[in-house]
Amino acid sequence: MTAPSPVTPSAKPSPQPAIILIDPQLGENIGMVARAMLNCGLTDLRLVRPRDGWPSESANAASSGALEKGVIVRVYDTTQDAVADCQVIMATTARPREMIKTVHTPRAAIAAIRDDITARGLTCGVLFGAERSGLQNEDVAIADAVITVPLNPDFTSLNLAQAVLLVGYEWISAQTTTPDTVFTTGTTDIASKETVLGLVGRLESTLDAHHFFRSPEMKPSIARNLVNLFTRMRMTDQEASTFHGIISALSGAKTALSARAAAKRGGNSGN
Amino acid sequence: MTAPSPVTPSAKPSPQPAIILIDPQLGENIGMVARAMLNCGLTDLRLVRPRDGWPSESANAASSGALEKGVIVRVYDTTQDAVADCQVIMATTARPREMIKTVHTPRAAIAAIRDDITARGLTCGVLFGAERSGLQNEDVAIADAVITVPLNPDFTSLNLAQAVLLVGYEWISAQTTTPDTVFTTGTTDIASKETVLGLVGRLESTLDAHHFFRSPEMKPSIARNLVNLFTRMRMTDQEASTFHGIISALSGAKTALSARAAAKRGGNSGN
Repeated sequence: MTAPSPVTPSAKPSPQPAIILIDPQLGENIGMVARAMLNCGLTDLRLVRPRDGWPSESANAASSGALEKGVIVRVYDTTQDAVADCQVIMATTARPREMIKTVHTPRAAIAAIRDDITARGLTCGVLFGAERSGLQNEDVAIADAVITVPLNPDFTSLNLAQAVLLVGYEWISAQTTTPDTVFTTGTTDIASKETVLGLVGRLESTLDAHHFFRSPEMKPSIARNLVNLFTRMRMTDQEASTFHGIISALSGAKTALSARAAAKRGGNSGN
Repeated sequence: MTAPSPVTPSAKPSPQPAIILIDPQLGENIGMVARAMLNCGLTDLRLVRPRDGWPSESANAASSGALEKGVIVRVYDTTQDAVADCQVIMATTARPREMIKTVHTPRAAIAAIRDDITARGLTCGVLFGAERSGLQNEDVAIADAVITVPLNPDFTSLNLAQAVLLVGYEWISAQTTTPDTVFTTGTTDIASKETVLGLVGRLESTLDAHHFFRSPEMKPSIARNLVNLFTRMRMTDQEASTFHGIISALSGAKTALSARAAAKRGGNSGN
């Protein structure tokens, strides 16, 4: 039943943990695991005794193309065979076990695996048990540590692909160079202070011309509040232009209205 | 179509972000979202225009009981209605958009939401779009920030429940008091240094009696290596006892074998 590897290990894109499913049942679940793996850049999938055999049509259908686009599957008869080349194994389990073992959150586990892989060049794998029953104690025993996802203790049932997704998500989050937070501005740039203060200055003088400030004393504090608000917007050059247009339109509209009203009054008095 | 809330907001277990699905299609997906939510301790689910109506038999079936065990669903006609009480909204989107907006990873987004909820008491919600099309630009525009999951750029298709799971996982991970790594020892405790050094000392003297050390010079470095190895095991009291038994059995067995061999020799010579 053990299939030869379709590629040499060196064909793998970069060192990464293997995902090892022990006694998986539905092909559909294996496919969803493959999809979650490729979402997270993982491609080394190992199956121990897949109940419905391999390859699997239902797995292909559920993988959304992940099985064609990069995930490499190898099938083994025993857990021992599947982990033979690994130097570090982690086992996922939701149930508390009376075992003497280090228990990591997925984040801590991936931090450890990442250090082992990048700093030591070790070969690492993560074990996942069957859908309903989880891992047998014999499989957990060979693991260097256990991974338990911190979930709502009253409702912990994760499906197989979701458990793989959380481990994979921690992996790709630890690999990624994406900043935690970035301010995107499309094709326009964040406005300079000169632009922002120029806009607020124009707004202030236009308001002044329209008798917005009832007393001269309130002007400095209102002006300061406006600088605060406009600074907090973190506006772009484009948005500053839009705002200049708004000021023109509103003040122009008022002028136009006043002009029309004056013309009307003029018309009334003149005609 | 807007259903009254089945419970008052104060019945919620603790302040948490609402999960808001815009135009969800399959009831099954809504059920899987509810399951992922309750896994992560989230119970405030809001649906805007669920295509197949609500309540939904297929949602109940797919929720694995989450819809009976705590997730509260409210249905709205518009996004505006669904977010009316929220002071902070985040929008999940995989596609890069030409929008001027802060983009967070799920971790950074949850850190921000958590601060808003716990430090400011703000009401927060997270928007998720329809299965295929995602959120409309109009819905993204009302969000204070966007959440984008850092995934394999060549394979980013997450299903709805998986996207909710990742946000929920960050939420519960930020809430949990579970240590990142803990060493579980069941009913036995980690052995004291006295126990470990006593065990190694006995092993050393037993080995000495069995002529393990070929020369007296090598003894100190081997002894030090053994202390290192036994310390690294981080053994428990129970395991130290087991090891004492192993030393007794092996050294006793050798003695017994020697005794039997001697007896055999004695028998041969004597009979």
